[in-house]
Amino acid sequence: MSDEPGPFRFERVAIVGIGLIGSSMALALRDNGFTGPIAIADRNGEALRIAAELELGTSYHVSAAKAVMGADLVILAVPVGAMRATGRSIAPCLAEGAIVTDTGSVKEAVLEALNETLPETARIVAAHPIAGSEHSGPRAGFATLFHRRWSIITPADDTDEEAIEIVAHMWRTFGSEIELMTPQRHDRVLAITSHLPHLIAYNIVRTAYDMETVAESEVIKFSAGGFRDFTRIAASDPTMWRDVFLNNKEAVLETLGRFSEDLAILQRAIRWGEGDALFDVFERTRAIRMSIIDAGQDTAAPDFGRPRDPSNAPPEDEDERPINAVRR
Amino acid sequence: MSDEPGPFRFERVAIVGIGLIGSSMALALRDNGFTGPIAIADRNGEALRIAAELELGTSYHVSAAKAVMGADLVILAVPVGAMRATGRSIAPCLAEGAIVTDTGSVKEAVLEALNETLPETARIVAAHPIAGSEHSGPRAGFATLFHRRWSIITPADDTDEEAIEIVAHMWRTFGSEIELMTPQRHDRVLAITSHLPHLIAYNIVRTAYDMETVAESEVIKFSAGGFRDFTRIAASDPTMWRDVFLNNKEAVLETLGRFSEDLAILQRAIRWGEGDALFDVFERTRAIRMSIIDAGQDTAAPDFGRPRDPSNAPPEDEDERPINAVRR
Repeated sequence: MSDEPGPFRFERVAIVGIGLIGSSMALALRDNGFTGPIAIADRNGEALRIAAELELGTSYHVSAAKAVMGADLVILAVPVGAMRATGRSIAPCLAEGAIVTDTGSVKEAVLEALNETLPETARIVAAHPIAGSEHSGPRAGFATLFHRRWSIITPADDTDEEAIEIVAHMWRTFGSEIELMTPQRHDRVLAITSHLPHLIAYNIVRTAYDMETVAESEVIKFSAGGFRDFTRIAASDPTMWRDVFLNNKEAVLETLGRFSEDLAILQRAIRWGEGDALFDVFERTRAIRMSIIDAGQDTAAPDFGRPRDPSNAPPEDEDERPINAVRR
Repeated sequence: MSDEPGPFRFERVAIVGIGLIGSSMALALRDNGFTGPIAIADRNGEALRIAAELELGTSYHVSAAKAVMGADLVILAVPVGAMRATGRSIAPCLAEGAIVTDTGSVKEAVLEALNETLPETARIVAAHPIAGSEHSGPRAGFATLFHRRWSIITPADDTDEEAIEIVAHMWRTFGSEIELMTPQRHDRVLAITSHLPHLIAYNIVRTAYDMETVAESEVIKFSAGGFRDFTRIAASDPTMWRDVFLNNKEAVLETLGRFSEDLAILQRAIRWGEGDALFDVFERTRAIRMSIIDAGQDTAAPDFGRPRDPSNAPPEDEDERPINAVRR
């Protein structure tokens, strides 16, 4: 995968924010042979304590400013809404020429925040790994999270070329593919591939929760009919997602407008009993799933290859059959 | 699981419609010791040919009427919209006192169709297993599909008690739990737990497909950001789903109305920058996922426990790590 294996091109790392992404990066650095110091900062004392317990880094700091001192690579893995305050707090302590990269899900707003708060000498490389899971916090991280996933880098016209290459090389070493695009384009693409899906998932779970005609216990019992697929991403970190919507407002509202328009047309087709119109839409959407599977971005196994026994409890009886056993 | 193990309480089975559900039932019957004849009918000659190749039954018929002759249990596993025509076609050939059960995702419309077309002597037991996958056709079936899933039976006031028990016993033997409710209640509960999720999934995939500002290739590449979760159920059988929406119109439109109302409120919160309102919604939805996992209806593994290598291709290099390996 990595077309340029070899040692990382930095010596001292600081990771600010030790959630799912920060902790996965710490693990991926070690797993891929990085031996230098990793200073970890988090405002949350409990997260910091867990990070220390898991030995994710070499030093642990409540103060981001202290963590970044002497680092030649600073990774900001905090919620998008915290980027400005973080930039302001680390600015005075940044080493000259340090590369500052981030992992935020919105790029235009983050670049603006960092450009406005960091010193001129900082080499800012905005990036976004398209990987994650619904689990949050330092215990959720794993070293292969970025494996066979895309990482998008969004350089500005004046971004230092060498700094881009150093960051890209790190992602490639983690097993990711690199795509370069403008921050504006990133925010538009992610609005449809990530932000809208999360908004819709949160919304349908909330609708189910609030229906007074159907008991919550019924929703839970019969969720295997489709609903449970939505609950996964609706269990993602609320702070992170609040910040995404507040910071990619324009593209999200535009995309949401399209979605609502399309939904109104389906609604009308149902009301008027237009079977052919419904069939046409349902038929076309299959093709996209096939393409996603072909592109290696999802599994073809039924139900995502979910274990048949979701609780991971031991089998109840001895003739328990293997997962999703297909008898032919 | 099965609180009443033991032989099935019928001797000759006919399965009309040999898609995912029909074929899974045929396999589950054999797997659980049913040794009698299984007559299989399907209008689709290719499906029938595959069913014969897989030896799902003992005889194969294009005519449903021929298949049901002499059967004491008839299983209708055709799309909801085909129930009326199927009922009409099998009516003259049904054995007296035969139990006719179905697996349709809508219950009020199906019961109406069967009550109006089948003879008085038929013992109709409407049922709906809450299980499935995005794969369709006779090759998609597997014997454990219904394992640890709910099967809903929707009796009418005059439904034969013994017939209900025989059908319930079959589902329990397949490893399912039984829930009894009215057809009306079923249709309302499924509207939110299954029908609306499918509609929304189809719709978002269509929206993505139609966005002229984002290339389809970008949607596919970056689908791991959330979008791919929706594409799974949007790859479900289009005929089946067209029929569901046409036959559960009222409950689906009511539920969709709620969804759109809730979405408008989120839209407004984004437009006005109301972070607290967004956070509150996103925080509440986490709890529902936990309950679904506790109820054994989904897995707690990140990403549904998806294989890390979605294509199931062999590892690209030797130090390939295990699926979702968590290093701590």
